[in-house]
Amino acid sequence: MKIVIYGLGIIGGSFAKAIKKYTDYHVTGINRSRKPLEDALACGAIDEIGSIESLSSADMLILGTFPDAAVRFVKDNAQLIPQNCIVTDSAGIKTGLCRELSAVSEEYGFSFVGCHPMAGKEKNGFSASEPDLFVGASCVIVPCDAEKGAVETVGNLMRKLRFGQIIYSTPEEHDRIISFTSQLPHVIACSYVMSPTCPKHKGFSAGSYRDVSRVANINEKLWTELFLENRDPLIEEIDILTQNLNRIKSAIQSGDREALEGLLAKSRNIKESFGE
Amino acid sequence: MKIVIYGLGIIGGSFAKAIKKYTDYHVTGINRSRKPLEDALACGAIDEIGSIESLSSADMLILGTFPDAAVRFVKDNAQLIPQNCIVTDSAGIKTGLCRELSAVSEEYGFSFVGCHPMAGKEKNGFSASEPDLFVGASCVIVPCDAEKGAVETVGNLMRKLRFGQIIYSTPEEHDRIISFTSQLPHVIACSYVMSPTCPKHKGFSAGSYRDVSRVANINEKLWTELFLENRDPLIEEIDILTQNLNRIKSAIQSGDREALEGLLAKSRNIKESFGE
Repeated sequence: MKIVIYGLGIIGGSFAKAIKKYTDYHVTGINRSRKPLEDALACGAIDEIGSIESLSSADMLILGTFPDAAVRFVKDNAQLIPQNCIVTDSAGIKTGLCRELSAVSEEYGFSFVGCHPMAGKEKNGFSASEPDLFVGASCVIVPCDAEKGAVETVGNLMRKLRFGQIIYSTPEEHDRIISFTSQLPHVIACSYVMSPTCPKHKGFSAGSYRDVSRVANINEKLWTELFLENRDPLIEEIDILTQNLNRIKSAIQSGDREALEGLLAKSRNIKESFGE
Repeated sequence: MKIVIYGLGIIGGSFAKAIKKYTDYHVTGINRSRKPLEDALACGAIDEIGSIESLSSADMLILGTFPDAAVRFVKDNAQLIPQNCIVTDSAGIKTGLCRELSAVSEEYGFSFVGCHPMAGKEKNGFSASEPDLFVGASCVIVPCDAEKGAVETVGNLMRKLRFGQIIYSTPEEHDRIISFTSQLPHVIACSYVMSPTCPKHKGFSAGSYRDVSRVANINEKLWTELFLENRDPLIEEIDILTQNLNRIKSAIQSGDREALEGLLAKSRNIKESFGE
Protein backbone atom coordinates (compact mmCIF):
# COMPACT_ATOMS: atom_id res chain seq x y z
CA MET A 1 0.00 0.00 0.00
CA LYS A 2 1.23 3.48 -0.86
CA ILE A 3 0.30 6.02 1.80
CA VAL A 4 0.66 9.77 1.43
CA ILE A 5 0.67 11.80 4.63
CA TYR A 6 -0.10 15.51 4.35
CA GLY A 7 1.09 17.47 7.39
CA LEU A 8 3.98 16.07 9.43
CA GLY A 9 3.21 17.53 12.85
CA ILE A 10 3.00 15.44 15.98
CA ILE A 11 0.06 13.36 14.67
CA GLY A 12 1.07 13.08 10.99
CA GLY A 13 4.65 12.41 12.07
CA SER A 14 3.56 9.73 14.52
CA PHE A 15 1.45 8.09 11.79
CA ALA A 16 4.51 8.05 9.53
CA LYS A 17 6.78 6.58 12.22
CA ALA A 18 4.17 4.01 13.30
CA ILE A 19 3.49 2.88 9.71
CA LYS A 20 7.20 2.41 9.08
CA LYS A 21 7.62 0.58 12.40
CA TYR A 22 4.62 -1.74 12.22
CA THR A 23 3.91 -2.26 8.49
CA ASP A 24 5.81 -2.57 5.21
CA TYR A 25 3.76 0.16 3.52
CA HIS A 26 5.40 2.90 1.48
CA VAL A 27 5.08 6.38 3.01
CA THR A 28 5.34 9.67 1.12
CA GLY A 29 5.37 12.91 3.09
CA ILE A 30 3.97 16.27 1.98
CA ASN A 31 4.29 19.32 4.18
CA ARG A 32 4.03 23.09 3.75
CA SER A 33 7.50 23.69 5.23
CA ARG A 34 10.62 21.76 4.25
CA LYS A 35 12.31 21.04 7.61
CA PRO A 36 9.90 18.34 8.94
CA LEU A 37 10.16 16.53 5.58
CA GLU A 38 13.94 16.44 5.75
CA ASP A 39 13.87 15.33 9.39
CA ALA A 40 11.31 12.64 8.56
CA LEU A 41 13.34 11.37 5.63
CA ALA A 42 16.54 11.37 7.68
CA CYS A 43 15.03 9.27 10.48
CA GLY A 44 13.21 6.90 8.15
CA ALA A 45 9.70 8.04 9.06
CA ILE A 46 8.98 8.53 5.35
CA ASP A 47 10.35 6.80 2.26
CA GLU A 48 10.30 9.95 0.15
CA ILE A 49 9.46 13.60 0.11
CA GLY A 50 6.47 14.05 -2.13
CA SER A 51 4.42 16.75 -3.83
CA ILE A 52 0.78 16.98 -4.84
CA GLU A 53 1.67 14.84 -7.85
CA SER A 54 2.29 11.96 -5.42
CA LEU A 55 -1.46 11.84 -4.81
CA SER A 56 -2.10 10.27 -8.22
CA SER A 57 -0.54 6.97 -7.13
CA ALA A 58 -1.78 6.97 -3.50
CA ASP A 59 -3.83 4.13 -2.06
CA MET A 60 -4.44 6.16 1.06
CA LEU A 61 -4.11 9.82 2.00
CA ILE A 62 -3.82 10.66 5.70
CA LEU A 63 -4.47 14.30 6.59
CA GLY A 64 -2.41 15.40 9.58
CA THR A 65 -3.16 19.12 9.54
CA PHE A 66 -5.66 21.37 11.32
CA PRO A 67 -9.24 20.67 10.10
CA ASP A 68 -9.59 23.79 7.89
CA ALA A 69 -6.29 23.13 6.15
CA ALA A 70 -7.22 19.48 5.64
CA VAL A 71 -10.49 20.37 3.90
CA ARG A 72 -8.77 22.99 1.76
CA PHE A 73 -6.00 20.59 0.67
CA VAL A 74 -8.47 17.94 -0.45
CA LYS A 75 -10.72 20.43 -2.24
CA ASP A 76 -7.75 22.03 -4.02
CA ASN A 77 -6.34 18.69 -5.17
CA ALA A 78 -9.43 16.50 -5.50
CA GLN A 79 -8.88 15.96 -9.22
CA LEU A 80 -5.49 14.35 -8.46
CA ILE A 81 -6.84 11.80 -6.00
CA PRO A 82 -7.51 8.40 -7.66
CA GLN A 83 -10.93 6.79 -7.29
CA ASN A 84 -9.51 3.79 -5.45
CA CYS A 85 -7.81 6.05 -2.88
CA ILE A 86 -9.09 6.23 0.72
CA VAL A 87 -8.79 9.66 2.30
CA THR A 88 -8.75 9.81 6.09
CA ASP A 89 -7.91 12.50 8.62
CA SER A 90 -6.96 13.02 12.24
CA ALA A 91 -8.94 16.10 13.21
CA GLY A 92 -10.43 16.50 16.67
CA ILE A 93 -13.71 17.72 15.23
CA LYS A 94 -15.87 15.93 12.70
CA THR A 95 -19.28 17.35 11.75
CA GLY A 96 -18.28 20.14 9.35
CA LEU A 97 -15.17 18.40 8.05
CA CYS A 98 -16.95 15.10 7.34
CA ARG A 99 -19.80 16.90 5.57
CA GLU A 100 -17.37 18.73 3.30
CA LEU A 101 -15.01 15.86 2.61
CA SER A 102 -17.81 13.35 2.05
CA ALA A 103 -19.29 15.70 -0.55
CA VAL A 104 -15.94 16.12 -2.33
CA SER A 105 -15.28 12.38 -2.23
CA GLU A 106 -18.66 11.67 -3.75
CA GLU A 107 -18.06 14.20 -6.49
CA TYR A 108 -14.63 12.80 -7.42
CA GLY A 109 -15.22 9.13 -6.65
CA PHE A 110 -12.61 8.44 -3.98
CA SER A 111 -13.54 7.33 -0.41
CA PHE A 112 -13.52 9.43 2.73
CA VAL A 113 -13.43 7.86 6.21
CA GLY A 114 -13.13 10.18 9.21
CA CYS A 115 -10.62 9.28 11.90
CA HIS A 116 -9.70 10.75 15.28
CA PRO A 117 -6.76 9.15 17.09
CA MET A 118 -7.30 9.85 20.81
CA ALA A 119 -3.68 10.57 21.57
CA GLY A 120 -1.49 13.62 21.84
CA LYS A 121 0.86 15.56 24.04
CA GLU A 122 1.24 19.14 25.19
CA LYS A 123 4.00 19.45 22.60
CA ASN A 124 3.56 19.95 18.87
CA GLY A 125 5.49 19.47 15.66
CA PHE A 126 7.34 16.60 14.03
CA SER A 127 10.00 16.62 16.77
CA ALA A 128 7.29 15.58 19.27
CA SER A 129 6.08 12.67 17.13
CA GLU A 130 6.62 9.08 18.27
CA PRO A 131 6.14 5.69 16.60
CA ASP A 132 4.32 4.46 19.71
CA LEU A 133 2.14 7.49 20.36
CA PHE A 134 -0.97 5.45 19.53
CA VAL A 135 -0.13 2.25 21.39
CA GLY A 136 -3.10 1.35 23.57
CA ALA A 137 -5.00 4.55 22.69
CA SER A 138 -8.52 4.68 21.35
CA CYS A 139 -9.17 5.43 17.68
CA VAL A 140 -12.55 6.85 16.73
CA ILE A 141 -13.53 6.04 13.15
CA VAL A 142 -16.35 8.02 11.58
CA PRO A 143 -17.41 6.06 8.46
CA CYS A 144 -19.71 8.77 7.02
CA ASP A 145 -20.87 7.57 3.59
CA ALA A 146 -17.83 5.42 2.82
CA GLU A 147 -18.25 1.83 1.68
CA LYS A 148 -17.62 -0.98 4.13
CA GLY A 149 -14.37 -2.03 2.46
CA ALA A 150 -12.81 1.40 2.87
CA VAL A 151 -13.88 1.59 6.52
CA GLU A 152 -12.35 -1.84 7.14
CA THR A 153 -9.08 -0.85 5.46
CA VAL A 154 -8.75 2.15 7.78
CA GLY A 155 -9.63 0.04 10.82
CA ASN A 156 -7.11 -2.64 9.85
CA LEU A 157 -4.36 -0.06 9.49
CA MET A 158 -5.16 1.44 12.90
CA ARG A 159 -5.04 -2.00 14.51
CA LYS A 160 -1.61 -2.58 12.95
CA LEU A 161 -0.45 0.72 14.45
CA ARG A 162 -1.31 -0.76 17.87
CA PHE A 163 -4.35 1.33 18.79
CA GLY A 164 -5.94 -0.28 21.86
CA GLN A 165 -9.51 -0.02 20.63
CA ILE A 166 -11.47 1.11 17.60
CA ILE A 167 -14.74 2.95 18.21
CA TYR A 168 -17.23 3.72 15.41
CA SER A 169 -19.26 6.88 15.67
CA THR A 170 -21.24 9.49 13.77
CA PRO A 171 -19.82 13.00 13.30
CA GLU A 172 -22.47 14.46 15.60
CA GLU A 173 -22.02 11.92 18.40
CA HIS A 174 -18.25 12.28 18.15
CA ASP A 175 -18.39 16.06 18.45
CA ARG A 176 -20.86 15.98 21.33
CA ILE A 177 -18.74 13.62 23.43
CA ILE A 178 -15.44 15.25 22.44
CA SER A 179 -16.74 18.62 23.57
CA PHE A 180 -16.86 17.06 27.06
CA THR A 181 -13.84 14.76 27.12
CA SER A 182 -11.32 16.94 25.32
CA GLN A 183 -12.47 20.49 24.62
CA LEU A 184 -13.98 21.29 28.01
CA PRO A 185 -10.79 20.25 29.89
CA HIS A 186 -8.87 22.69 27.69
CA VAL A 187 -11.38 25.47 28.44
CA ILE A 188 -11.13 24.62 32.14
CA ALA A 189 -7.31 24.61 32.17
CA CYS A 190 -7.14 27.99 30.43
CA SER A 191 -9.78 29.53 32.69
CA TYR A 192 -8.12 28.06 35.78
CA VAL A 193 -4.63 29.49 35.28
CA MET A 194 -6.09 32.97 34.67
CA SER A 195 -6.78 33.32 38.41
CA PRO A 196 -4.63 36.08 39.94
CA THR A 197 -3.65 33.49 42.59
CA CYS A 198 -1.90 31.31 39.99
CA PRO A 199 1.50 33.09 40.04
CA LYS A 200 1.76 32.43 43.81
CA HIS A 201 1.20 28.68 43.57
CA LYS A 202 4.80 27.46 43.87
CA GLY A 203 5.40 25.44 47.02
CA PHE A 204 1.67 25.25 47.69
CA SER A 205 0.78 22.87 44.91
CA ALA A 206 0.83 19.14 44.31
CA GLY A 207 -0.84 16.81 41.85
CA SER A 208 -4.26 18.42 41.57
CA TYR A 209 -2.93 21.82 40.44
CA ARG A 210 -0.61 20.14 37.94
CA ASP A 211 -3.35 17.93 36.48
CA VAL A 212 -5.98 20.64 36.00
CA SER A 213 -3.51 23.17 34.55
CA ARG A 214 -1.57 20.77 32.30
CA VAL A 215 -3.29 21.46 28.99
CA ALA A 216 -3.26 25.25 29.52
CA ASN A 217 -0.02 24.89 27.59
CA ILE A 218 -2.25 25.16 24.55
CA ASN A 219 -1.78 25.69 20.81
CA GLU A 220 -4.15 28.65 20.61
CA LYS A 221 -4.57 28.60 16.82
CA LEU A 222 -5.55 24.93 16.68
CA TRP A 223 -7.89 25.07 19.65
CA THR A 224 -9.55 28.29 18.54
CA GLU A 225 -10.41 26.48 15.32
CA LEU A 226 -11.62 23.37 17.16
CA PHE A 227 -13.72 25.37 19.66
CA LEU A 228 -15.36 27.51 16.96
CA GLU A 229 -16.09 24.44 14.82
CA ASN A 230 -17.91 22.82 17.75
CA ARG A 231 -19.61 25.88 19.15
CA ASP A 232 -22.99 24.55 20.25
CA PRO A 233 -21.99 21.31 22.03
CA LEU A 234 -19.07 23.06 23.72
CA ILE A 235 -21.17 25.98 24.97
CA GLU A 236 -23.68 23.48 26.32
CA GLU A 237 -20.92 21.68 28.25
CA ILE A 238 -19.53 24.97 29.61
CA ASP A 239 -23.03 25.88 30.80
CA ILE A 240 -23.53 22.48 32.47
CA LEU A 241 -20.16 22.82 34.19
CA THR A 242 -20.97 26.34 35.39
CA GLN A 243 -24.31 25.13 36.78
CA ASN A 244 -22.61 22.32 38.68
CA LEU A 245 -19.90 24.65 40.00
CA ASN A 246 -22.68 26.90 41.25
CA ARG A 247 -24.49 24.02 42.96
CA ILE A 248 -21.33 23.22 44.92
CA LYS A 249 -20.72 26.92 45.55
CA SER A 250 -24.25 27.40 46.93
CA ALA A 251 -23.84 24.50 49.34
CA ILE A 252 -20.54 25.98 50.56
CA GLN A 253 -21.95 29.49 50.80
CA SER A 254 -24.96 28.44 52.86
CA GLY A 255 -22.83 26.10 54.99
CA ASP A 256 -25.13 23.22 54.06
CA ARG A 257 -22.91 20.31 55.10
CA GLU A 258 -25.40 17.64 54.12
CA ALA A 259 -26.02 19.04 50.63
CA LEU A 260 -22.30 19.49 50.03
CA GLU A 261 -21.46 15.96 51.18
CA GLY A 262 -24.28 14.69 48.96
CA LEU A 263 -22.94 16.47 45.88
CA LEU A 264 -19.38 15.27 46.45
CA ALA A 265 -20.57 11.71 47.11
CA LYS A 266 -22.52 11.85 43.84
CA SER A 267 -19.37 12.86 41.98
CA ARG A 268 -17.35 10.12 43.65
CA ASN A 269 -19.99 7.56 42.64
CA ILE A 270 -19.91 8.73 39.02
CA LYS A 271 -16.12 8.62 38.95
CA GLU A 272 -16.11 5.15 40.52
CA SER A 273 -18.77 3.90 38.09
CA PHE A 274 -17.25 5.25 34.89
CA GLY A 275 -13.61 5.41 35.93
CA GLU A 276 -10.92 6.42 33.52
CA MET B 1 13.01 12.19 70.35
CA LYS B 2 9.71 10.57 71.27
CA ILE B 3 7.01 11.27 68.73
CA VAL B 4 3.33 10.49 69.21
CA ILE B 5 1.20 10.35 66.08
CA TYR B 6 -2.55 10.69 66.48
CA GLY B 7 -4.47 9.37 63.48
CA LEU B 8 -2.84 6.71 61.31
CA GLY B 9 -4.49 7.40 57.96
CA ILE B 10 -2.55 7.92 54.76
CA ILE B 11 -0.75 11.03 56.09
CA GLY B 12 -0.24 9.96 59.72
CA GLY B 13 0.77 6.50 58.55
CA SER B 14 3.22 7.94 56.04
CA PHE B 15 4.72 10.15 58.77
CA ALA B 16 5.16 7.06 60.94
CA LYS B 17 6.78 5.03 58.17
CA ALA B 18 9.01 7.93 57.07
CA ILE B 19 10.18 8.65 60.62
CA LYS B 20 11.08 4.99 61.14
CA LYS B 21 12.84 4.86 57.77
CA TYR B 22 14.80 8.09 57.96
CA THR B 23 15.39 8.78 61.69
CA ASP B 24 16.01 6.84 64.89
CA TYR B 25 13.14 8.52 66.73
CA HIS B 26 10.67 6.54 68.80
CA VAL B 27 7.13 6.52 67.38
CA THR B 28 3.97 5.85 69.36
CA GLY B 29 0.66 5.53 67.50
CA ILE B 30 -2.78 6.50 68.74
CA ASN B 31 -5.86 5.90 66.66
CA ARG B 32 -9.60 5.74 67.20
CA SER B 33 -9.88 2.27 65.65
CA ARG B 34 -7.58 -0.66 66.45
CA LYS B 35 -6.81 -2.15 63.03
CA PRO B 36 -4.44 0.56 61.69
CA LEU B 37 -2.49 0.43 64.97
CA GLU B 38 -1.99 -3.31 64.70
CA ASP B 39 -1.03 -3.04 61.04
CA ALA B 40 1.40 -0.22 61.85
CA LEU B 41 2.98 -2.17 64.68
CA ALA B 42 3.23 -5.31 62.55
CA CYS B 43 5.07 -3.51 59.73
CA GLY B 44 7.33 -1.50 62.03
CA ALA B 45 5.76 1.89 61.27
CA ILE B 46 5.33 2.47 65.01
CA ASP B 47 7.30 1.21 68.01
CA GLU B 48 4.25 0.87 70.20
CA ILE B 49 0.52 1.31 70.38
CA GLY B 50 -0.16 4.18 72.75
CA SER B 51 -3.01 5.87 74.55
CA ILE B 52 -3.60 9.44 75.67
CA GLU B 53 -1.27 8.72 78.59
CA SER B 54 1.59 8.47 76.06
CA LEU B 55 1.26 12.22 75.55
CA SER B 56 2.86 12.94 78.94
CA SER B 57 6.29 11.79 77.70
CA ALA B 58 6.00 13.10 74.11
CA ASP B 59 8.57 15.50 72.66
CA MET B 60 6.36 15.93 69.61
CA LEU B 61 2.73 15.23 68.78
CA ILE B 62 1.81 14.95 65.10
CA LEU B 63 -1.91 15.21 64.34
CA GLY B 64 -2.88 13.11 61.33
CA THR B 65 -6.66 13.45 61.50
CA PHE B 66 -9.22 15.73 59.86
CA PRO B 67 -8.89 19.34 61.16
CA ASP B 68 -11.94 19.28 63.48
CA ALA B 69 -10.87 16.02 65.11
CA ALA B 70 -7.31 17.35 65.52
CA VAL B 71 -8.50 20.46 67.37
CA ARG B 72 -10.83 18.42 69.55
CA PHE B 73 -8.11 15.89 70.47
CA VAL B 74 -5.72 18.62 71.58
CA LYS B 75 -8.38 20.53 73.52
CA ASP B 76 -9.57 17.37 75.27
CA ASN B 77 -6.07 16.30 76.27
CA ALA B 78 -4.22 19.60 76.63
CA GLN B 79 -3.51 19.03 80.30
CA LEU B 80 -1.54 15.86 79.42
CA ILE B 81 0.77 17.55 76.90
CA PRO B 82 4.11 18.55 78.49
CA GLN B 83 5.32 22.15 78.17
CA ASN B 84 8.39 21.09 76.16
CA CYS B 85 6.25 19.22 73.61
CA ILE B 86 5.80 20.54 70.10
CA VAL B 87 2.38 19.91 68.60
CA THR B 88 2.11 19.94 64.83
CA ASP B 89 -0.57 18.87 62.37
CA SER B 90 -1.11 17.96 58.73
CA ALA B 91 -4.42 19.62 57.91
CA GLY B 92 -5.09 21.14 54.50
CA ILE B 93 -6.63 24.22 56.08
CA LYS B 94 -5.00 26.51 58.59
CA THR B 95 -6.76 29.72 59.69
CA GLY B 96 -9.32 28.35 62.15
CA LEU B 97 -7.20 25.42 63.29
CA CYS B 98 -4.11 27.55 63.95
CA ARG B 99 -6.11 30.15 65.87
CA GLU B 100 -7.61 27.46 68.12
CA LEU B 101 -4.48 25.40 68.66
CA SER B 102 -2.27 28.46 69.21
CA ALA B 103 -4.68 29.61 71.93
CA VAL B 104 -4.67 26.19 73.62
CA SER B 105 -0.88 25.95 73.39
CA GLU B 106 -0.49 29.36 74.99
CA GLU B 107 -2.83 28.42 77.80
CA TYR B 108 -1.04 25.14 78.59
CA GLY B 109 2.53 26.11 77.76
CA PHE B 110 3.39 23.68 74.92
CA SER B 111 4.25 24.81 71.37
CA PHE B 112 2.08 24.64 68.31
CA VAL B 113 3.52 24.82 64.78
CA GLY B 114 1.14 24.34 61.85
CA CYS B 115 2.21 22.01 59.06
CA HIS B 116 0.74 21.01 55.69
CA PRO B 117 2.58 18.32 53.75
CA MET B 118 1.71 18.90 50.07
CA ALA B 119 1.36 15.22 49.24
CA GLY B 120 -1.45 12.73 48.98
CA LYS B 121 -3.18 10.23 46.78
CA GLU B 122 -6.73 9.51 45.70
CA LYS B 123 -6.65 6.66 48.23
CA ASN B 124 -7.06 6.94 51.96
CA GLY B 125 -6.28 5.02 55.12
CA PHE B 126 -3.18 3.43 56.61
CA SER B 127 -3.00 0.86 53.81
CA ALA B 128 -2.34 3.72 51.35
CA SER B 129 0.50 5.20 53.44
CA GLU B 130 4.09 5.07 52.18
CA PRO B 131 7.46 5.88 53.76
CA ASP B 132 8.39 7.91 50.67
CA LEU B 133 5.10 9.76 50.18
CA PHE B 134 6.81 13.04 51.05
CA VAL B 135 10.01 12.61 49.04
CA GLY B 136 10.50 15.71 46.92
CA ALA B 137 7.15 17.23 47.97
CA SER B 138 6.68 20.68 49.40
CA CYS B 139 6.01 21.15 53.13
CA VAL B 140 4.24 24.33 54.19
CA ILE B 141 5.06 25.30 57.78
CA VAL B 142 2.84 27.83 59.51
CA PRO B 143 4.78 29.02 62.57
CA CYS B 144 1.90 30.96 64.16
CA ASP B 145 3.07 32.18 67.59
CA ALA B 146 5.58 29.38 68.20
CA GLU B 147 9.14 30.17 69.25
CA LYS B 148 11.89 29.91 66.69
CA GLY B 149 13.35 26.76 68.23
CA ALA B 150 10.11 24.83 67.89
CA VAL B 151 9.67 25.96 64.28
CA GLU B 152 13.23 24.83 63.51
CA THR B 153 12.65 21.44 65.13
CA VAL B 154 9.63 20.82 62.89
CA GLY B 155 11.54 22.03 59.82
CA ASN B 156 14.51 19.78 60.64
CA LEU B 157 12.25 16.76 60.99
CA MET B 158 10.57 17.49 57.66
CA ARG B 159 13.93 17.80 55.93
CA LYS B 160 14.93 14.41 57.37
CA LEU B 161 11.73 12.91 55.95
CA ARG B 162 12.98 14.03 52.50
CA PHE B 163 10.55 16.83 51.73
CA GLY B 164 11.88 18.67 48.68
CA GLN B 165 11.26 22.16 50.01
CA ILE B 166 10.03 23.89 53.14
CA ILE B 167 7.82 26.97 52.68
CA TYR B 168 6.88 29.27 55.57
CA SER B 169 3.51 30.96 55.47
CA THR B 170 0.77 32.58 57.52
CA PRO B 171 -2.54 30.77 58.03
CA GLU B 172 -4.37 33.31 55.87
CA GLU B 173 -1.88 33.21 52.98
CA HIS B 174 -1.82 29.41 53.13
CA ASP B 175 -5.60 29.13 52.96
CA ARG B 176 -5.91 31.69 50.15
CA ILE B 177 -3.41 29.88 47.92
CA ILE B 178 -4.62 26.39 48.85
CA SER B 179 -8.16 27.36 47.87
CA PHE B 180 -6.75 27.75 44.35
CA THR B 181 -4.13 25.00 44.11
CA SER B 182 -5.95 22.21 45.90
CA GLN B 183 -9.57 22.94 46.75
CA LEU B 184 -10.67 24.45 43.43
CA PRO B 185 -9.36 21.45 41.40
CA HIS B 186 -11.49 19.20 43.61
CA VAL B 187 -14.55 21.40 43.05
CA ILE B 188 -13.82 21.38 39.30
CA ALA B 189 -13.38 17.59 39.13
CA CYS B 190 -16.65 16.98 40.98
CA SER B 191 -18.55 19.51 38.86
CA TYR B 192 -17.02 18.11 35.68
CA VAL B 193 -18.05 14.47 36.11
CA MET B 194 -21.65 15.53 36.86
CA SER B 195 -22.20 16.28 33.16
CA PRO B 196 -24.76 13.89 31.63
CA THR B 197 -22.15 13.28 28.89
CA CYS B 198 -19.72 11.69 31.36
CA PRO B 199 -21.12 8.13 31.21
CA LYS B 200 -20.54 8.09 27.44
CA HIS B 201 -16.87 9.04 27.57
CA LYS B 202 -15.29 5.61 27.10
CA GLY B 203 -13.31 5.36 23.87
CA PHE B 204 -13.57 9.11 23.35
CA SER B 205 -11.20 10.15 26.09
CA ALA B 206 -7.47 10.49 26.57
CA GLY B 207 -5.25 12.34 29.02
CA SER B 208 -7.22 15.53 29.47
CA TYR B 209 -10.40 13.81 30.64
CA ARG B 210 -8.40 11.62 33.02
CA ASP B 211 -6.47 14.53 34.51
CA VAL B 212 -9.42 16.82 35.16
CA SER B 213 -11.61 14.05 36.60
CA ARG B 214 -8.92 12.31 38.69
CA VAL B 215 -9.70 13.84 42.10
CA ALA B 216 -13.47 13.40 41.69
CA ASN B 217 -12.68 10.16 43.50
CA ILE B 218 -13.10 12.28 46.62
CA ASN B 219 -13.44 11.64 50.35
CA GLU B 220 -16.64 13.65 50.73
CA LYS B 221 -16.50 13.96 54.53
CA LEU B 222 -12.96 15.34 54.59
CA TRP B 223 -13.45 17.75 51.70
CA THR B 224 -16.80 18.99 52.95
CA GLU B 225 -15.00 19.95 56.16
CA LEU B 226 -12.10 21.56 54.27
CA PHE B 227 -14.39 23.49 51.89
CA LEU B 228 -16.61 24.81 54.68
CA GLU B 229 -13.58 25.83 56.78
CA ASN B 230 -12.25 27.89 53.85
CA ARG B 231 -15.53 29.26 52.60
CA ASP B 232 -14.62 32.81 51.58
CA PRO B 233 -11.37 32.23 49.67
CA LEU B 234 -12.82 29.17 47.93
CA ILE B 235 -16.00 30.98 46.85
CA GLU B 236 -13.84 33.80 45.51
CA GLU B 237 -11.83 31.31 43.43
CA ILE B 238 -14.98 29.60 42.14
CA ASP B 239 -16.31 33.02 41.09
CA ILE B 240 -13.06 33.95 39.34
CA LEU B 241 -13.08 30.61 37.50
CA THR B 242 -16.70 31.06 36.45
CA GLN B 243 -15.93 34.56 35.13
CA ASN B 244 -13.01 33.23 33.09
CA LEU B 245 -15.09 30.32 31.76
CA ASN B 246 -17.66 32.89 30.68
CA ARG B 247 -15.06 35.06 28.94
CA ILE B 248 -13.99 32.07 26.84
CA LYS B 249 -17.62 31.07 26.30
CA SER B 250 -18.53 34.57 25.07
CA ALA B 251 -15.70 34.56 22.56
CA ILE B 252 -16.83 31.15 21.26
CA GLN B 253 -20.49 32.19 21.19
CA SER B 254 -19.85 35.36 19.20
CA GLY B 255 -17.37 33.57 16.92
CA ASP B 256 -14.72 36.12 17.87
CA ARG B 257 -11.61 34.28 16.65
CA GLU B 258 -9.21 37.03 17.64
CA ALA B 259 -10.56 37.39 21.18
CA LEU B 260 -10.56 33.60 21.68
CA GLU B 261 -7.00 33.21 20.40
CA GLY B 262 -5.98 36.08 22.67
CA LEU B 263 -7.50 34.44 25.75
CA LEU B 264 -5.94 31.06 25.02
CA ALA B 265 -2.55 32.67 24.28
CA LYS B 266 -2.79 34.49 27.62
CA SER B 267 -3.38 31.16 29.41
CA ARG B 268 -0.49 29.53 27.59
CA ASN B 269 1.80 32.39 28.60
CA ILE B 270 0.77 32.08 32.25
CA LYS B 271 1.29 28.31 32.18
CA GLU B 272 4.68 28.73 30.51
CA SER B 273 5.73 31.43 33.00
CA PHE B 274 4.68 29.68 36.17
CA GLY B 275 4.90 26.08 35.02
CA GLU B 276 4.25 23.18 37.32
